[in-house]
Order: sequence, then C-alpha cells, then structure tokens
Amino acid sequence: MTAATQAGKTDVAAEVVACGARARHAARILRSSSTAQRNAALAAIAHQLESARESLKAANQGDLERGRRAGLADALMDRLALDDRRIDAMIAGLETVRALPDPIGGVDELRRQANGLEIGRMRTPLGVIGIIYESRPNVTIDAAALCLKAGNAVILRGGSEAFDSNRAIADCIAAGLAEAGLPAATVQVIDTTDRAAVGALITADEYVDVIIPRGGRSLIERIAGEATIPVIKHLDGLCHVYIDRHADPRKAEEIAFNAKCFRYGICGAMETLLVDEAVAGDLLPAMLARFAAAEVELRGCERTRELAGESGVQGVLAADEQDWYSEYLGPILSVKVVAGLDEAIDHINHYGSHHTDAIVTEHLTHSRRFLAEVDSSSVMVNAATCFADGAQYGLGAEIGISTDKLHVRGPVGLEGLTTRKYIVLGDGHVRS
Amino acid sequence: MTAATQAGKTDVAAEVVACGARARHAARILRSSSTAQRNAALAAIAHQLESARESLKAANQGDLERGRRAGLADALMDRLALDDRRIDAMIAGLETVRALPDPIGGVDELRRQANGLEIGRMRTPLGVIGIIYESRPNVTIDAAALCLKAGNAVILRGGSEAFDSNRAIADCIAAGLAEAGLPAATVQVIDTTDRAAVGALITADEYVDVIIPRGGRSLIERIAGEATIPVIKHLDGLCHVYIDRHADPRKAEEIAFNAKCFRYGICGAMETLLVDEAVAGDLLPAMLARFAAAEVELRGCERTRELAGESGVQGVLAADEQDWYSEYLGPILSVKVVAGLDEAIDHINHYGSHHTDAIVTEHLTHSRRFLAEVDSSSVMVNAATCFADGAQYGLGAEIGISTDKLHVRGPVGLEGLTTRKYIVLGDGHVRS
Repeated sequence: MTAATQAGKTDVAAEVVACGARARHAARILRSSSTAQRNAALAAIAHQLESARESLKAANQGDLERGRRAGLADALMDRLALDDRRIDAMIAGLETVRALPDPIGGVDELRRQANGLEIGRMRTPLGVIGIIYESRPNVTIDAAALCLKAGNAVILRGGSEAFDSNRAIADCIAAGLAEAGLPAATVQVIDTTDRAAVGALITADEYVDVIIPRGGRSLIERIAGEATIPVIKHLDGLCHVYIDRHADPRKAEEIAFNAKCFRYGICGAMETLLVDEAVAGDLLPAMLARFAAAEVELRGCERTRELAGESGVQGVLAADEQDWYSEYLGPILSVKVVAGLDEAIDHINHYGSHHTDAIVTEHLTHSRRFLAEVDSSSVMVNAATCFADGAQYGLGAEIGISTDKLHVRGPVGLEGLTTRKYIVLGDGHVRS
Repeated sequence: MTAATQAGKTDVAAEVVACGARARHAARILRSSSTAQRNAALAAIAHQLESARESLKAANQGDLERGRRAGLADALMDRLALDDRRIDAMIAGLETVRALPDPIGGVDELRRQANGLEIGRMRTPLGVIGIIYESRPNVTIDAAALCLKAGNAVILRGGSEAFDSNRAIADCIAAGLAEAGLPAATVQVIDTTDRAAVGALITADEYVDVIIPRGGRSLIERIAGEATIPVIKHLDGLCHVYIDRHADPRKAEEIAFNAKCFRYGICGAMETLLVDEAVAGDLLPAMLARFAAAEVELRGCERTRELAGESGVQGVLAADEQDWYSEYLGPILSVKVVAGLDEAIDHINHYGSHHTDAIVTEHLTHSRRFLAEVDSSSVMVNAATCFADGAQYGLGAEIGISTDKLHVRGPVGLEGLTTRKYIVLGDGHVRS
C-alpha cells in the first residue's frame, strides 16, 4: 500500500478496502502453498533483516527522534527502540516459527459412518487477519511470521510512533516473500498514520476474517465496539492465587511471591491473594512481611489487617470493594482471608477477569474442584500465574492471550489462527 | 420470567437483564453439576412431555387458531403444528442427547514441559447461551436439551406465533429440572412477544456469552448487526457440485440429481452444477434431461445451452452473473461448463457461500486439491451436498450449521456449545 497520509478520509478508506481485496486474493494462493514455500519465506525474511540491520536502526532513529520531540514517556521510548539485541530477537523469532510443525492440512477425527461415508475435520487457514497494534515494531515481524506460517494473509496496522521502523521492516518482509515466490499482498503494512484506516479495516467484512488488536484496554474496547468483523480480544488479567488449608507452606509463599513480583506489568501477575482462614494465621504474617520488604503496597480485608497488626507488619491499608475488581499492573496487592475453597472459587468467578487463577494445595479433591469450577482461560495448581504465556505453554510463539471464550481462550498460537472444515469422503453416496 | 407483555420497553429490558443474571448464577451451579444429574434432567423433561401430551396439544391449538386468524402461510402453519408425531420426535430427541457422551471435563493434549509443568486443555461449558428462533416449537426442546447437556444455562426467545406452545413446553422443562435438582434458571423461556426483549438479550454482554439465531436471513443479519455479544451465524447455503473430467459417469449423475432434488429447501441443496468441458458433451445432456423431467428450471452458460439444444432438451434459460450468486432454495438450477479443476475451485471460492461443495472424481490428486483448496465449511468427494447435517455427521443432534469461520464451522453439535481452558499442573513451580 502506498502512503496516503495526505489523502482525504474517503481515499484512505478506499485504499484500505483495496488492500483487503489484494489480501483476499493472496489468501487464495496461500491456501495452496506448500509448507516448504512458507518456511522458505520465513527464512528469507530473516535473511533480509540480517542484511538490513543498519538501515533498520537508521529508520528507527527517525522514530526515536520524533518520539523524543513529542515527549513520549520513557517506557514508550523503550518499547519503540530497535537495537541489535532486538533485531536478533526478531530473527530468532522467525526461526522459532519456521521450526514449528505446519498446522495446516491435518485431519482429525476421521470416522466412518454406518453408511460408509468417512467424515473428518481438516485444519485450514482462517483467510485474512487484520492486526492493530501499538508502538513495538517487533510485533510487525512476530505477527507476520505467525500469520504466514498458518497460511493466512495479514494486514498490519502499527502505531504511528513506529512509522519509519515498520516501513523498513515491511520492506524486508516484501523482499523475503518475493524471494520465496509468494504474493506481495501476503503481508501488507498500512503505512498511513490516518486513524480512518483503522475504521475502514475493522469494517471491511468482505475481505477480513478476524481482527486481533494488541494494545491497551481503550484501544481494544474501541475496536471491539466498532468492528463488524469478529475480534479476538486480549483484555484484563485480574489473576488470583488461592492458598488452600492443605497447601504446602513453602510452595504457598514462593508461588504467591513469584506470581506478584516476577513482573508487575504482565497480564499473568497476581493482583489478589486469597488465603484460607484455617492457615491464614500461620502463613500470612511471613508472606505480608516479604511483600512489604519488596515494597509492594498491601490492601487487606479486616482479618488480614488484624494478622498484620499482631505480627508487626506496618502499613497494610484497608481494601474496599473496588480493590477486588482492580488490576493494578504494579506493586500493589489486595489480600483477603476466605472461609475455604467454596468462597475462594466464588470470589474468583465473581470479581476476577477469567484470565489466570491458581490454587496452592496438596489436596487432590480440592485441586480437581478448583480446576473444574474456576471459569478462567488458565487454571493452575501449585504454579505461579505468571506462567500464563504462549512460550511457556509450548506454543512456540503467541500473538496474544485471548480473554474471549469463543474460538480460542488463553494464549493464542498458530492453532488460534486456523479453523477446521469438515471433509466428507464418499463413493457415490446419495441420501434416500 | 413472568409475562411482561403489557409492560413498557424499559421494564422488558430490565426483566431480560434479570433473566440474564439468574442464568449466570445457574451457569455457576451447572459448572459443578455431574453428568448423571444433567442426564437425569433430560430424562425427567422427556417424562414430563409424555405426561403433558394433551395439554401441549391444547396449548398448540391456541397458537394455530391465532395463526389461522392472522392468515399465516401454509408452510408456517405446518411448522407451528404440534401433533403426537412431533411430540414423539421431541421425546426421542431428548433421549438421543441424553445418550451422547458428556463433552465436559475431558482433557486433551496434556503434555509435560521441560520444566516439569504439565499443561493441557479441559473442555468446559460456554456459560450462558441465548437462542432466538422462529415458529417451530420443537426448537425449544432441542436447543434446551443440547445446552443443558453441555452444562450451559440457556435463554430461549421463540417466535410470537408459538407463544402458547412454548409456554407449555417451558412448564415441562421447569418441572423436569426441578425433579433433577437443577436450578430453574438453567432454561428460561422469555415469554413476552415484545420485540424489545430481543434487543435487550443481544446486548446483555455481562450475562450472555453467545447468541445463536435460528431463522431467516433477515433475522440473522439484524441480530448479528445489533448484538454486542458474539453470534454464531447460520446464513446462506449456495452449494456446488463439480463434475470432474475423471468422474464416474453414473456417480456424477446420481450425486448431482440427489444434491438438487433430495429437498429443495435445505441449506445443503445444490444451487449450481459445474461440469468439466472435457466431459460436458458426454454427461450433461442426460443430466439436463433428467432435471427437466423433474421440473427443475435450468439456467445455463452458453455452452450448456448449446449442448441442451443439440440434444433436444428444451427451455434452458441463459444464466446471468446474478445466477452464480443465487441460493434458489427451490426447483431452479444454474449450470456452467468450466475449463477444469482450477476454474471450478475459483468459481466456488468466488461465487459460493462457503457452506458445502462437492467434487465427483476418481482422480486422487484432483480430490486432494479440491479438499485442500475449496474454502467451505464442508467439502465433499463423491457424495451429495445434502449430507451436510449434524445427524448425518454423527453429531447426534445439531443446533444449526455455522457459516462462520471462528469457533465452529459447519454443523454445530455439543462441542460447539463448549470451550476449552488451559490447565496447568505444577509442584511449586515459579518463574525465574
């Protein structure tokens, strides 16, 4: 797509639609591409990135320069930066995806019916995927690689802050696709900063099969609200760890501390700690002290504050109703003492975001009930919630973590970018 | 839900939201219900229907009476009617669903990661399902049975024509649920004819996880357009049969005839016949004559009309571009001679509705390419497209045929009413 930054809204929309039509055409060709051909394209793109190191860094300098002038926050500037280490990571990511088994064409559950018809389900590409994301330029490569591997055409709309970097990466992708003999429209980067492009993309139902937004809550909610195409959403991670009365004390403390403090900003970070009243007196004081020492702000229920007071842990604030609904994404933790497993499950299902929740217990039936009854995309036993991640789950790479229930729930890897059709094999079968 | 037919729009909306809240609560209880308990409810509902035969027929008489006065078309009156045969079918349907294996709780793909974490996926209920349908009262039972078996709560909104019948069926369901000790809100029938109820249901995102509309295209499109909840759609079936140059002539004729004439009104009926030019001269004249004898109106491409003329088949009209886009759902067939497999696949992917398409061939590679490259929910080899149906596919029962790509594609049985969550089993695992 050629730049249309100066064009009117109608021109931008028309250009996005044309982009969609080209993607649809490319998707038809990809449907009959071989595994070898798609893998060759991934290798060629990696090779192009390697050759283009200096020009990628130069293009990125332009974005950083503009970001500095615009006064972007340090965290955003850091995400935007493309250094050798990050280029290495992009190249390694392409290699990881190349090495994954091809998800396309496999047939499951092929069964012969009584009348001799054989019926099964074949995994196929979704078709055309639209991805809308914010400042990290590496998403351009990660998303393109996963979509291409799964036989999809993809339309990428990155953040305006990364305009030059994304354009330079897009050149590498285009050269790699050409080398492998795949259509240029397999991966298209919308290179206009005009916001009308997003509106046009998320309503191009004729050409785009699914939209995946990656970014903050407001971006995702706006897109989900306005899209006329199905959206795979990645919303809040309000994760819990529940310490059962049958927990191993050492595991309880380590898991709770790791779930909160491994990284505060990830969606798998624990936001609320629930502790069975039968063990709260024994376990909670040491845990609170350790969080306090790590400068985690604590907000507790009444019982938690009593226990903190008795054991000399200072500064545990009173949690209010709103705290149980809060994803802090920072060094804050709410703590509640509960009557037992039932209250813990009810609390999680009511206040949680159905992302990732863990129980610490040595009790078999408690673990089985927690697994069955907690309605979250990942439910864990004796493991820290921060494991919720495609790479940790063995997916090789992920394009996000779906908080939806339909289609794909939890980390989205290659399989989430595919669908299954029925195949029916007969020998002249007719219905009577 | 008590009737609110006289109430204002706001009251109706409030009542639907209250209905959603009750359903959400019931869904939490269902999540921990046993297979035996859900099966007992299905058996009890069947028993209630058996006992209530006479009152069901009496209630249905009220609907039929009103329909007659309102001048409903014969086809609609037929759908509305509830006689002993149809009550038998509802009872048999409950038994079929009861006998299906419980989809809930099964764990797939449990694998041990290098760090010892075991990660797998557990099948769980979706939660709360909203079903909006038109006049057939039997849908009330079929939909309730499938949703209940899969551990979901369901809110049913039937057509106003079937108001009394649906209320009588709802009473049987309620009694059966009570007998099995499941919450009354497991199955709720919205018994107001106020259209505002539909609007409220399809936007109750807090309480409803998915909407399944069953009915005509306009109903489905309106709901998909206005819903803020994911919708599983069942749209057009513009199905093709392609007669390859390597087709067995007898199979070709039988499959084509059956695909069109088994039933004109089903979504798996063939609407366009494609024939390879290499065999069109040999095969098409007899096929056209047979369709003409069955009083199927024929609309052909130029070559089809030439062949019809040469062989004395009368009245083959000229097909225009619009015909290739038409789902006739009646005794009309468009016929096109194509250059071969590539043109057939391109035609199907371009003009078709991605529902069900078949090839007739004895050529292995042609069959493999057709299966891989035709982008439809069902792709068939040497079988008639009218096999596209959940019962024929061994699903036991179906709630519709999804024309969507995400979540579930093709006939939707129990599995389509479930989702999968990740389960992660550790032994004190933390990330470093």
